[in-house]
Amino acid sequence: MGKELLRLFQDRKDQVGDFQVVGAMRRNGLSSPIESPPKPRDLKEVLDSLLPDVLIDVSSPNYESGEPSTSAYLEAFKRGIHVITANKAPLALHFVDLMGESLKRNVKLMFQATVMSGVPSINLKRVLPASHFISVEGILNGTSNYILTKMYQGISLRDALRDAQELGYAEPDPKLDLNGFDAAAKITILSNVYLNSGATIKDVTFDGIQDLSLDYLLKCREKGLKPKLVATASRSELKVSVVPLDSSHPLYGIDGVNNGLLLRTDLEDILISGPGAGPRRAAYGVLSDLVLLKDSLPKFS
Amino acid sequence: MGKELLRLFQDRKDQVGDFQVVGAMRRNGLSSPIESPPKPRDLKEVLDSLLPDVLIDVSSPNYESGEPSTSAYLEAFKRGIHVITANKAPLALHFVDLMGESLKRNVKLMFQATVMSGVPSINLKRVLPASHFISVEGILNGTSNYILTKMYQGISLRDALRDAQELGYAEPDPKLDLNGFDAAAKITILSNVYLNSGATIKDVTFDGIQDLSLDYLLKCREKGLKPKLVATASRSELKVSVVPLDSSHPLYGIDGVNNGLLLRTDLEDILISGPGAGPRRAAYGVLSDLVLLKDSLPKFS
Repeated sequence: MGKELLRLFQDRKDQVGDFQVVGAMRRNGLSSPIESPPKPRDLKEVLDSLLPDVLIDVSSPNYESGEPSTSAYLEAFKRGIHVITANKAPLALHFVDLMGESLKRNVKLMFQATVMSGVPSINLKRVLPASHFISVEGILNGTSNYILTKMYQGISLRDALRDAQELGYAEPDPKLDLNGFDAAAKITILSNVYLNSGATIKDVTFDGIQDLSLDYLLKCREKGLKPKLVATASRSELKVSVVPLDSSHPLYGIDGVNNGLLLRTDLEDILISGPGAGPRRAAYGVLSDLVLLKDSLPKFS
Repeated sequence: MGKELLRLFQDRKDQVGDFQVVGAMRRNGLSSPIESPPKPRDLKEVLDSLLPDVLIDVSSPNYESGEPSTSAYLEAFKRGIHVITANKAPLALHFVDLMGESLKRNVKLMFQATVMSGVPSINLKRVLPASHFISVEGILNGTSNYILTKMYQGISLRDALRDAQELGYAEPDPKLDLNGFDAAAKITILSNVYLNSGATIKDVTFDGIQDLSLDYLLKCREKGLKPKLVATASRSELKVSVVPLDSSHPLYGIDGVNNGLLLRTDLEDILISGPGAGPRRAAYGVLSDLVLLKDSLPKFS
């Protein structure tokens, strides 16, 4: 995803504007500073030597501790550095603390890419400034939805998973796509954004598609039902489970690698949907945040 | 709709913030200023005597000339007054001139409520700051979509229209819902917003549902097709017509009074949908603009 991001920044130079990539860091330390000081391996040293305006995190989620990302964000905040992340783990584990710390330091923590990639699931809230949200419901994992769509057409789970991997949709560990954990991380983030839940991923009851049989799918289809991996957050509930939807449900038509998010408000139900997987689309979510950050900071240089 | 707006402002006082209603004007002049000066009938006098920060237009569209709204906006801009409108006609006729004039005077012209009411069709663009839009496609008229949905279930156009009117969905003149004109006005506005088309409603080729027979609907249904009144804007095309959609089309599932907007970008197709009709929902679109306006003007008092 890092490579896709660099490519996209190059393609969209006009929108990226004043921003320049001043360094890229991997697990083993700083890998490409623009100038070449002695290669520091420690993030604090890297931040102090480069002093970027924004830290962008496209590393893989570590759901054990959220590290090293969580500490990296806190170090960035201390230095007045904004953070844009595509990594779900720090937010799924420490949402309230991280948001609180960024507010205290008067810097931004932006994370559109963590849910539905470039489809504005998180950022949509900015244009719904007067809504009272009652619940959010979503199909949030592209890989499992792709697999369910294929199984609904009569293809086995194993074959469908292989397709998804070849298309670059699956997480590094596809187990997290299949067992509902990835969707659980995403609904945790959404419940914090839309419902101020204060929840962490430990509060989510989740199940996945790993044990679904082709037979079950086809029986549902006979009854006019389409099983989907649905994540739900309300004041009383936070869960991920397979739900056989009937055709009147707004999420019924969300097929293939598409994701869908249904926001229920006191006035209306709003659905937003689009493809939610793939490194280039995730990179696009990061780019959106970067442009919004730029526009929110008139004196930014 | 004016009444719904006042009610909503009352309900959401916390979000409306510093704004207060200082006067309401009807065709026959100022009807409810907070204090009671001699009742002026002329808009310029009203603007000069009340000097509001924002002019809100919830009047019915006049597609002949866009008046008196168009002149009212220009007078407001001259005085540094922002405009929020739910009235499609001025924008469908004079989009480029009005936006140009508001930019010149450094005031805002906001119009979320003109398309899909409170569902962020226009304002969604704010959170897609790095997208390259290729085309937009939508089901934009709630009344005709409601009628088509009912006809698809075997109910006659006439009975379905009566239902829609009783539910408060239809325009004052339902002819404009049925013949595609209302959708044409909306796709004109969207094509300006997303494609910088510079178009006016005179550039739209439009047709409606007024002559569709129940027989045609039921024949389509037999073939697995669902006829919808689809508005389309691309670089080469601007039109409204009835299209029999197959179930793989993203707009296929948009039924009843719901509207749906499909934004095709170079990276992904994004669909947003929700109920697009009814005075309270339109009022909510106006309220959204008002809160966004407030937040965009940090020193606003």
